[in-house]
Amino acid sequence: MKKLGIIDIGSNSVRMVVLHIKPDGSFRLIDEVKETLRLGERNGDSRNLQPEKMRTAIETLRFFKDLGEALEVDELVATATEAVRRAPNREDFLKMVQEEIGIRISVLSGMQESYYDYFGAINTMVLSDCLIMDIGGASTELILVRNREFRQSVSLPFGAITMAEMFRLKDPLTEETRQKMRKFLYSEFANLTWLESAGPLVGIGGSFRNLSKIDRKLKNYPLDITHNYSMTDMDVNEIFRLVSGKSAKDRTDIKGLSADRADIFPGALAEIEALLDFTGIKSIQVSGAGLREGIGYEHMLGGREPVRDVLENSLDNLVKNFGVNERHASNVWNLSRTLYHQLQEELGIERNQERVLKTAALLHDCGINVSYYDHHKHSFYTILNSRINGLSHKELVMAAMVAAMHRKDEMKLTAPFKSLLDRKEYNTVRQLGIMVRIAESLDRRQNGNVIGIESQIAAKTVTLRIQAWISPGLEINDAKSIAGTFARTFGKQLQIQESEEVDSVE
Amino acid sequence: MKKLGIIDIGSNSVRMVVLHIKPDGSFRLIDEVKETLRLGERNGDSRNLQPEKMRTAIETLRFFKDLGEALEVDELVATATEAVRRAPNREDFLKMVQEEIGIRISVLSGMQESYYDYFGAINTMVLSDCLIMDIGGASTELILVRNREFRQSVSLPFGAITMAEMFRLKDPLTEETRQKMRKFLYSEFANLTWLESAGPLVGIGGSFRNLSKIDRKLKNYPLDITHNYSMTDMDVNEIFRLVSGKSAKDRTDIKGLSADRADIFPGALAEIEALLDFTGIKSIQVSGAGLREGIGYEHMLGGREPVRDVLENSLDNLVKNFGVNERHASNVWNLSRTLYHQLQEELGIERNQERVLKTAALLHDCGINVSYYDHHKHSFYTILNSRINGLSHKELVMAAMVAAMHRKDEMKLTAPFKSLLDRKEYNTVRQLGIMVRIAESLDRRQNGNVIGIESQIAAKTVTLRIQAWISPGLEINDAKSIAGTFARTFGKQLQIQESEEVDSVE
Repeated sequence: MKKLGIIDIGSNSVRMVVLHIKPDGSFRLIDEVKETLRLGERNGDSRNLQPEKMRTAIETLRFFKDLGEALEVDELVATATEAVRRAPNREDFLKMVQEEIGIRISVLSGMQESYYDYFGAINTMVLSDCLIMDIGGASTELILVRNREFRQSVSLPFGAITMAEMFRLKDPLTEETRQKMRKFLYSEFANLTWLESAGPLVGIGGSFRNLSKIDRKLKNYPLDITHNYSMTDMDVNEIFRLVSGKSAKDRTDIKGLSADRADIFPGALAEIEALLDFTGIKSIQVSGAGLREGIGYEHMLGGREPVRDVLENSLDNLVKNFGVNERHASNVWNLSRTLYHQLQEELGIERNQERVLKTAALLHDCGINVSYYDHHKHSFYTILNSRINGLSHKELVMAAMVAAMHRKDEMKLTAPFKSLLDRKEYNTVRQLGIMVRIAESLDRRQNGNVIGIESQIAAKTVTLRIQAWISPGLEINDAKSIAGTFARTFGKQLQIQESEEVDSVE
Repeated sequence: MKKLGIIDIGSNSVRMVVLHIKPDGSFRLIDEVKETLRLGERNGDSRNLQPEKMRTAIETLRFFKDLGEALEVDELVATATEAVRRAPNREDFLKMVQEEIGIRISVLSGMQESYYDYFGAINTMVLSDCLIMDIGGASTELILVRNREFRQSVSLPFGAITMAEMFRLKDPLTEETRQKMRKFLYSEFANLTWLESAGPLVGIGGSFRNLSKIDRKLKNYPLDITHNYSMTDMDVNEIFRLVSGKSAKDRTDIKGLSADRADIFPGALAEIEALLDFTGIKSIQVSGAGLREGIGYEHMLGGREPVRDVLENSLDNLVKNFGVNERHASNVWNLSRTLYHQLQEELGIERNQERVLKTAALLHDCGINVSYYDHHKHSFYTILNSRINGLSHKELVMAAMVAAMHRKDEMKLTAPFKSLLDRKEYNTVRQLGIMVRIAESLDRRQNGNVIGIESQIAAKTVTLRIQAWISPGLEINDAKSIAGTFARTFGKQLQIQESEEVDSVE
């Protein structure tokens, strides 16, 4: 057991996350604090850290340190980025922090910052080729990813605060200002010979989080989840238009925009819009994970080799965090996968649904942590809110619904999820729900008694022959309650029998 | 650690619950199975158990036994009630069960059955004087409770199935049938000299659970919680009218009524209506706990002394089940109680809200089990669904909302909870939410650093002087985020200072 604190001294805000890493390799976030200090705000032309900002930063770090001690943090990693990196007086600041509160800050190079951004995103999203953009207060990182590998990166020395200082963005934006920003950004991007359209733009940082939140509010999106949220270039254009027309004060009316970001937000939007235009990228995926998560994964994985399978890694972690019965969960997953593979084609079930099925099967009982009563409903809620990495939002909702169907008849497709799933996807959910429900019955003893299933599909029937360690009468009896739902869904009678295979041992 | 299985062979259904009892005394339900066998159904005039029913019962018990073994149950308690109790051939049945599956069934006397009903209800509801009614398939228990004590009881040899057999209730009921049932029931009740109106009628059993479910559906009630649900005699009359007008087949249209109870439900309703009329009792509280829970509590408490404080017992159990940081939870409860007691009168906060405040304070972090992100929202969901005993439904919703406010500004009062809380109650929620939020900040280190609070209330300010083990700068700094909400709610500025008390140690 280890508690790791990660402090990130950014140009806009200073944050600390505390991770609890268990001996079994699982981890969870146990605390998070943030202060918006605007350390990267300049006083005139000086790139120095301003004395009063330094004082506030030290007070904040003292608070973080105290909190870390109170939480019994074993290791504290503190990093700083552009505001400190560029400051001629940074040694004074680092020395003060070291002497007054005993924290040694690592000032990350632009490349290191880019790498951790990449490492946070690559371990929490299913990405192959993409361009990552992290807009900070005083810098912007761009990272080219090919085949999940880190290829190229740059740390541009301007961010949301810098843009606001350069172009004065407090009033409604004139067309002239927008053109100026665009010209500036294009000339910066033009220097990057390697910049190209490579899959989606993956957006990191508070500006992207705000952008996605505004978009969700505008669209009445049914989930309040930032990570892996998808948007298009058109969505960005629309929000930029909306924001540009307003002064910083009036922007606070925009639902989803943080008050403490209203003044600097248009600069970030200008950067995103220009990059999309410049590269021709049309689609954005927002990442809730970046620098801090990248540092966290480096510690947890013990190196810089990304996880092999993002979803699997995330599910392993959640299975341990939720303390579900791992043996039963894995039995239900194996049995439902067997059923799916044997029945998928002939019963006309959608292909390639293993990720949804696996998530639902492994986590079907996680709602027991809320209460045993109606725990299928609580599994729905828990899955929906548990920040599983490696699923699209659609798949997440589908998995939550499949899990909700593991004990009872169908869950209806109602608002607000109606807007996310169409009838066909809902039908897939119902079909997968039956697979999990049969698997749940077949592992009714929770001990892996059922070893094999052999399916025979005839005109009017589906027969499952069950091979089990000891006679599976109990399991078959329990599975009978599914027959009605099965017949309604697939138009065939379900028959479950003990396999007639006889042991050859005399 | 111990796993206890409790089998209850009733006249309508046979059930098993499995409880996991931990060394720290906490327990949770981990499995529940039910088969509706109608063991109490008669064949002509014979009171004997019918051979085919006995066979099915034995198969069901074999399933339960196997499941118990698979779940590694350490102790299996099996009880039977009226259907077995009255049967002249019961010894044959008991012997068959013993010989074929090795389960020894205790046949409870009517008094024992009544006692366990009482013990299930008294440990899970705040009751002083009341009349308990448990309607089974073939018997009805009535128990008079005075001052939380078991006073008198009777087990009447008829229940929902018996009534259906006696009065043929499959068709829509004629006025004549209703009169006949009423006459029969009144004559039975008239023999019970001790029967009187003593607080509410506490209803136990499937018929009451169905009754409450129908009532919730009719009223669009915002919670799907049976235990401690309140109804009036008028509600019962209305539902009886609704049910009486329909045949058994048509009754399945009634939302909330189980299909496997549609034929016998009017008999149970007739019993409830007659008892309310006879005693003049106007209000009903439905108990989700009865015989099985009574047996469970006897085992868990190691005797027949009821818990001293139902809410406290339930909260202790949930704090352990959820694995929340007990020290921090108890610090937040102590600090918020101190604040409440010091501020309640002068700031015009509602009196007697300790139960709501205690629940919210002790469980404010339980949502972390779902995810740290937005855990205040998950605490809301978890509290609402965690079957806390000893709170009214209104108090439960209030506590969940107060917990949801421990980190962020107010949670709005929206549908469906608008129908349960009025503006005044919502205002109380907001005020208590501030108490918990200040307490949370004052225990920001989670280690009980703050020892004392001294409040001073002036015309325009409320000043809190904080005494702490080590200087509480961190805590006070954290609590400052509440100042705006505090001022808006109470119309006074909140000031928090370190107490000037100086240690007298030189």
